[in-house]
Formats: sequence, structure tokens, C-alpha cells
Amino acid sequence: MNAPDPLLAAGERRTAPETLVRALRDLLGDRATTAQAVRDHHGRDESPFPAMPPDLVIHPESTEEVAAAVRLCATHRTPVIPFGAGSSLEGHIQAVHGGVTFDLTRMNAIVEVRASDLDVTVQAGVTRKQLNEHLRDTGLFFPLDPGADATLGGMAATRASGTNAVRYGTMRENVLALTVVMADGSIVRTGTRARKSAAGYDLTRLMVGSEGTLGIITEVTVRLQPQPEALSAAVCAFPTVRDAVETVITTIQCGVPVARCEFLNVSAIRAINAHGRLALAERPMVFFEFHGTAAGVREQAETVESIAREAGATGFEWSATPEERSRLWKARHDAYFATLALKPGGRVLSTDACVPISRLADCIVETEADVARSSLPIILLGHVGDGNFHLGINHDPADPAEVHEAEAINERLVARAIAMGGTCTGEHGIGMGKMTFLEAEHPSGVPVMRILKRALDPDNLMNPGKMVRI
Amino acid sequence: MNAPDPLLAAGERRTAPETLVRALRDLLGDRATTAQAVRDHHGRDESPFPAMPPDLVIHPESTEEVAAAVRLCATHRTPVIPFGAGSSLEGHIQAVHGGVTFDLTRMNAIVEVRASDLDVTVQAGVTRKQLNEHLRDTGLFFPLDPGADATLGGMAATRASGTNAVRYGTMRENVLALTVVMADGSIVRTGTRARKSAAGYDLTRLMVGSEGTLGIITEVTVRLQPQPEALSAAVCAFPTVRDAVETVITTIQCGVPVARCEFLNVSAIRAINAHGRLALAERPMVFFEFHGTAAGVREQAETVESIAREAGATGFEWSATPEERSRLWKARHDAYFATLALKPGGRVLSTDACVPISRLADCIVETEADVARSSLPIILLGHVGDGNFHLGINHDPADPAEVHEAEAINERLVARAIAMGGTCTGEHGIGMGKMTFLEAEHPSGVPVMRILKRALDPDNLMNPGKMVRI
Repeated sequence: MNAPDPLLAAGERRTAPETLVRALRDLLGDRATTAQAVRDHHGRDESPFPAMPPDLVIHPESTEEVAAAVRLCATHRTPVIPFGAGSSLEGHIQAVHGGVTFDLTRMNAIVEVRASDLDVTVQAGVTRKQLNEHLRDTGLFFPLDPGADATLGGMAATRASGTNAVRYGTMRENVLALTVVMADGSIVRTGTRARKSAAGYDLTRLMVGSEGTLGIITEVTVRLQPQPEALSAAVCAFPTVRDAVETVITTIQCGVPVARCEFLNVSAIRAINAHGRLALAERPMVFFEFHGTAAGVREQAETVESIAREAGATGFEWSATPEERSRLWKARHDAYFATLALKPGGRVLSTDACVPISRLADCIVETEADVARSSLPIILLGHVGDGNFHLGINHDPADPAEVHEAEAINERLVARAIAMGGTCTGEHGIGMGKMTFLEAEHPSGVPVMRILKRALDPDNLMNPGKMVRI
Repeated sequence: MNAPDPLLAAGERRTAPETLVRALRDLLGDRATTAQAVRDHHGRDESPFPAMPPDLVIHPESTEEVAAAVRLCATHRTPVIPFGAGSSLEGHIQAVHGGVTFDLTRMNAIVEVRASDLDVTVQAGVTRKQLNEHLRDTGLFFPLDPGADATLGGMAATRASGTNAVRYGTMRENVLALTVVMADGSIVRTGTRARKSAAGYDLTRLMVGSEGTLGIITEVTVRLQPQPEALSAAVCAFPTVRDAVETVITTIQCGVPVARCEFLNVSAIRAINAHGRLALAERPMVFFEFHGTAAGVREQAETVESIAREAGATGFEWSATPEERSRLWKARHDAYFATLALKPGGRVLSTDACVPISRLADCIVETEADVARSSLPIILLGHVGDGNFHLGINHDPADPAEVHEAEAINERLVARAIAMGGTCTGEHGIGMGKMTFLEAEHPSGVPVMRILKRALDPDNLMNPGKMVRI
């Protein structure tokens, strides 16, 4: 993988001074620890970047504790790194310059469900599965599903989305308000519970996707959806990648409100067949899911089935039971682990890109051709209704040739996506891994981003070494 | 109305110096003018704020001309005020500190329609009606409808929405990317055409709703929607305001994807009956509109009709023909003029607030009771599916007692909305009119907004005297 920016890596590593360690212990007792095992656990995410443990890990339990701890870190000019489930994919949580990791998983209270307003406020450490478990009897659910059982704080911080964003939007659309602790320790409430507002600069959206570099998100208010009356899913095999993708494109262009449509290439099908003990046909496939009234779901499915048959689909199999559906989506969500299993001892470079949907078939076909030349085990899949897809590249991080090959494939993917009017990441974020690509994508925007970062975090203490180079 | 902040009003009025006037004439020829009639025309919007004409009005035709003119203004430390249709409602375009108004209406090119991607790029001066006229044969449309035939640039700048945001979202959700000229004259492209992106700080959303105070929006890329296969509308009268609002709340909570649901109180019905020569029953009413497949629209309408009947609705009349529908929505959209006609010589204070939907009935009932004590002609209506509603208060801006009464009603409305967890404006914006309310709503957020403003516009030249006090 790309090394962290040499300018930063060569710079001062702001080791937490002993006085700060003492002060945090005074504040949090044994919820502040320097134990090596805990630091190591917090030193890396699911990216292949090497571990960079923090000097200290703290487990605050309230926004006020976060604010007090941030103030102490600011006084000691020590970096602050927020940590949720640790499931990020671009080196979001490595302690590049040392410092204190704020593990927010003890902030896991569901603060208030307001069923009649279709919203909920949670502490940042609540995970999406925990939330949906809690909501089960309310008739509502939180639709966003990035695969991992991520925390809501982490999902907000990385602007996460996942398989059903095509219907329900991303964290950008679903967060109503945040509580954020800023670099100076001040506590900011970014929004109200009104569905829409034209009041002031959109601080909520500024913080969503800021990856801890502008502040620490401690509470999240998100929209909920009524559980659909009916739900059905289908798997559909296609003769070629292009046929599969064109089916999805036509579906979107016809305005069918499909809830999910997930493309998997043949390598991905083989990997999840092996890992999930499934027996799917080894063909380019799309998994569809439809939500709505019973009649609405039937109508959507009929429309999509006829589009698919037109495109030469050879099977349109219904997974009517909830168990079948769960098995299918679990297999899909375990694709990361399925890729990991393709070659023991490897790590997975999991990258994503997103293009305008008219270019999606070209982008996937060109990427498949590129990948076919590689000796590494690589799968391709994605939330193609949004134009978003992923590569999972299994490689040995200790082998420079394999690392180079994985990086080169990633670079070509991103360059291809940007050239097609797309973005270097649809949902994984920038972290340490895509700072150079962000500059390529937003040559005029990155200087503005730097101004914002400097204005809100003048000492560069909030998750430094990520997002923008200072 | 509230006077502009005395600190600012008492401050230097940065009259455009003669050298700047000459330089802009050199750049733009007769598209730079100091003619009094033109300046007067650009000195006010549809708010009751007094006119404050700029020193100079320019009509740039390209982003590059805007950038060159902004650089000249920056050199001469002269304020820059963007101007679209002039239909804003909170004193967004008054030249509080003098300066140069950038009239963007000649930037009315539709740059590129990409039907297969369901998006379009337009220059900022394109109006929504012009855009939809242009799209007519593509099978697509731009759904946002704030009533006025606003420009897309103005709609982005004020985070506009309107009657069908409940289904299609606001400008926040519909803008994919912007071209913005910043305070230093640099040109920034804020996004790509990818449907979603996790790449960097969300500059698009930072600019949407920034009301010209951080930069001038010169191009807008927005999402388009497939024209619905079927469309139907209904008007429905209710015994009480609460019955009407509760029907809407239940509709939303049931997940019916209603395209519009517009509440009008009895005063509003009377006003539009008189102005639009209609004969609607003088009862609290909701106008519904449904978009979808033929079967889907029928199903939605049946569900809503049964919810309405349960709530005691006394009529559920269908407007099946496009002509009937247009007549109804035109009457609704002319509510501003209908209110103006209630008392000749008056101006309309048109304010809006938005609350969580569970509090909407309470908020409207309390507001109606408050308004009933006033001697001024006042209507209440709104896009209640979002919790958003409006007061139109006809008053004589030359009569201090009437001005005071209108302002007091507005202040109580906003205080009520904020106390209920809502916002001081759902869609009209802050402008000069709601700066104090913004501080009340976002006591912790406004200091952050000030940091952003100072960082991106250090000389306070971009539409000064609006949004945040510096």
C-alpha cells in the first residue's frame, strides 16, 4: 500500500506526554489504558496498511467525557483518533502521528426512538445491527447496510452507504443531526429534528464523511423507514457482465424503486460459493431485492424480470423465504472474508469506485479485463444501481511485488473511474489510502478542503495524516 | 422588519470605487451598468425589507467572467451580491453594504442533458420552468418546485425545496455538483457526476444553502427523475385543522410515497378562491398528488382516501385531468399574490418553519390560535408531509404598528418551532431576516459557521450582512 505521506511520516510523532496520560487516567480511571494488547488492537482497521498503535486508548462514556479528553489532548498538542468498530477499509484509524485513540464502543446507548417521527438518536458507538434489533417491534428499521456491523458514528464519519443506498440513500441523506466534539473541545449540535431546514451552513453534511478530521461525532440522529409490507428477492444469472449491468441500468432508468441490486462477477460467485457453501451458477449475477406493498413488489419484480429476460438472463430465481434471503445476503456480506480465504496469509485490498451509470458497463468490463491479467485472486462486485462497485484484491503485504501489483490495479481503477466522470470512492472514504486520488479527483476542491481543515483544526490534531495533506 | 445588524449598518458602506466601475466596464462593456432603474430593480427581493440598491449591476455570461469580476471586486474590497430571479423571501439580495450585483440571468444555457444518467448540468441562471420545458421530450423531469420560477443557482444557494420535497427531496439531495467562484476568484468544481461519493469534505452541501456568502454558484448539476407513468391528484376537506394534519402524518408514517401533500387553512382557501376564481369549500384542506405506475397510484390513493375518511374527511375529490391539476397547483403557487391581494398596498411577510411531524398538528393549531388574535390578513399553508408550513402576513411596511405585529407573529412562530425541536426555516433561508433566529436555533453551531465564513471569505465581501454576523 501507499506509505503515509512522507512529509507527515518524517514529521514529529506527537507521543502522548506522561502528564496527559495521568490527566486522562484521573478523568477516566481504568478506562484509559496504555496496555500493549489494547493499543495493538486499535492500531489498524481492515485495510492492509501496517498497524500503527496509539500511545493510549480511552473508553469515554459520554459526550462530556469526550469533550474533556479532547481539551486535555489539545492542551498537550496530542493527536486524537476516533474508533468505532474498526471495520474501515482505507487506514482511517491508524495512529500515524501517535496520540490517543477514543474508542467509542461504550457509548452504545439508544438515546431516544421517536417512532411517530420516524427518527432515532443514538450514541456514536451503537452498531446498525444493535439498532435494528432494538427497533424490531416498532414497525420501523434503519435501512443502511454497509456489510460490516459498523457503528453509526463510524458510518456517519465515513459517509457509508451499502447495498440498499439505491433506494434509501447514504448516510448523507439519512443523518438528520449530529453531536460533535470539535478540536477545541466545544460541543456542537449540528441540526434539529426537522426533516428539512434552510437554516445556515450545512454543518451536518460537513461532518458526515469528514473521517474524524474535523471533530469527533458522539451522537447521531438518523431517519428510519417503515418496515415494508412485502419484500422479495431474486437471483439472476446473465450471459455476460455487460448484459447484467445493462439490466440494472435499464431498471434504474425506468424508475423502478428497487431496494437493492448487487452485481457479482464470476470470481466473486466462486469465492462466496466456496466460503458460504452455496451452489450458485458460475455466471455474472445480480441479486435483486424489492420492498413495498404486496402488489407493488410483484409489479416491480415483473418489470425487472422482463428487462432481465430481454437482456438474455438465463435464470430469475426467487428467494421467497426470509431464511433464503438472509443466506444470500450473508454470503454477499461475507465477500471480504471469502476473498481473504482465497489465499491463506493474504490481506485484502478492498477498494471501491463509483461512476455515472451510463459508464458503468464500460468501467466494469475494462476493469475485468485489467484484473484478468493479474496473478492475484481478485473479486469484483458492487451496488451497481448507484454505479458503485468494489474490487477485493487478495495479496501478501510482505511481498513487494504483490503489493505493487495490487496498488497498480487500484490506481488504474481509480484513474478509469475519474476519467469517466466518477469518483475515487463511492463509500469507503479517503483515509490514508486515497489522499493522492482525492487530489486527482478534486484539484480545485482540495485547496478549499485544506482551508476548512486548518480553520477548524488549526493544530492538525484531529485524526492527522488522513483525508488531506496539511 | 428587523433592520440589518446595526454593527454592520453603521459600518463602512463599501461603495464601488470609480476604478472598479471602469475595470468592470472594460471587462463586460454595457453588461456593466450603473443606471438607477437597473440598480433599483436589483435592490430588493419579495421580502418586505426596504430596497438597498447596489452601486453597479453586471451581467456576466460565463463562469470565467464571474471569476474575473470577483477578482476585481476583491482587489477593490467591494461587496459581491449574486442575483437570480429575485424571488427570495428573506432579504437575500439587498446590497446592505453597497457593492456589485452579479445578475446571472444571462447564464441561462442548458449545458448538457445526460438522459441515460438521469442528470443535467445547467448554468446558474436557468429557471426550473425553462429546464422542464427543455426536458419535455426526454421522459425526464426536474421535480423540485418552490412555487416561483426560480433559477437553479438561486435554488441551490437557498437550499430550496417546495411542494414535492416529501417525495423527491430538497436541493440538498438533488444537487450532484456545483461550479462555484470563491471569494478570491478561484473556480471550484465541488463534485463529480457519480451518484454517491465518500471522497473528501462535502463541498457541494457546504455551498448548497450558503446564500452567496461563501461563493457564487455558476453551474449546477442536478438529478432528474423519470416522468411518472401515472399521476393523480385529489383535494380533500376536513372538519378541523387537526384532522387534516393527522391524516398527513398517518400517510407519511405508513410509508405511502405521496408526491405532494399540501395543507391550506380556511384563510388560505378563501384567498386563493378569490384570487384564482376557484370555488373550493371553505374548510381546512389538503391537496394530494400521487406519482407512480397506474396500479401504484391507484393503491396509494386508496390508502390515503381511507386514512382521510377515518379522520372525518368530508370530500375526496379527484382532479383527474391535467388541466384541473394545473389549475389547482397554479392557485396554490399564486398564494403569495393571493395574500398580497387581501389588502391593497401591503407587502407580504412570507415566513416558514419546519417541525418534527409528531408536533406538526400542535404547531399549526397553536399558530392558528395566535394568528386569530391578529387584525392583519394572514394565511397558513404548507408542505406538511415534511412538517414544513408557511405564514403569509399582509401588512403595511410604512405602518410601524403593523410591522411590529407581523414581526411579533413571526418571532412567536419561530420560537414555537424551535421549542418543538424544529427549525426557523424549512426552505426560505436566513438572509437578513432570520440571523437572530439562526443564533437561537444553533447556539453552538453559529460560532462554527462564523469560522467557516471567515476562513473562506476573510474580507467579508461575499453577500455581506446575510446569514451570520461577523
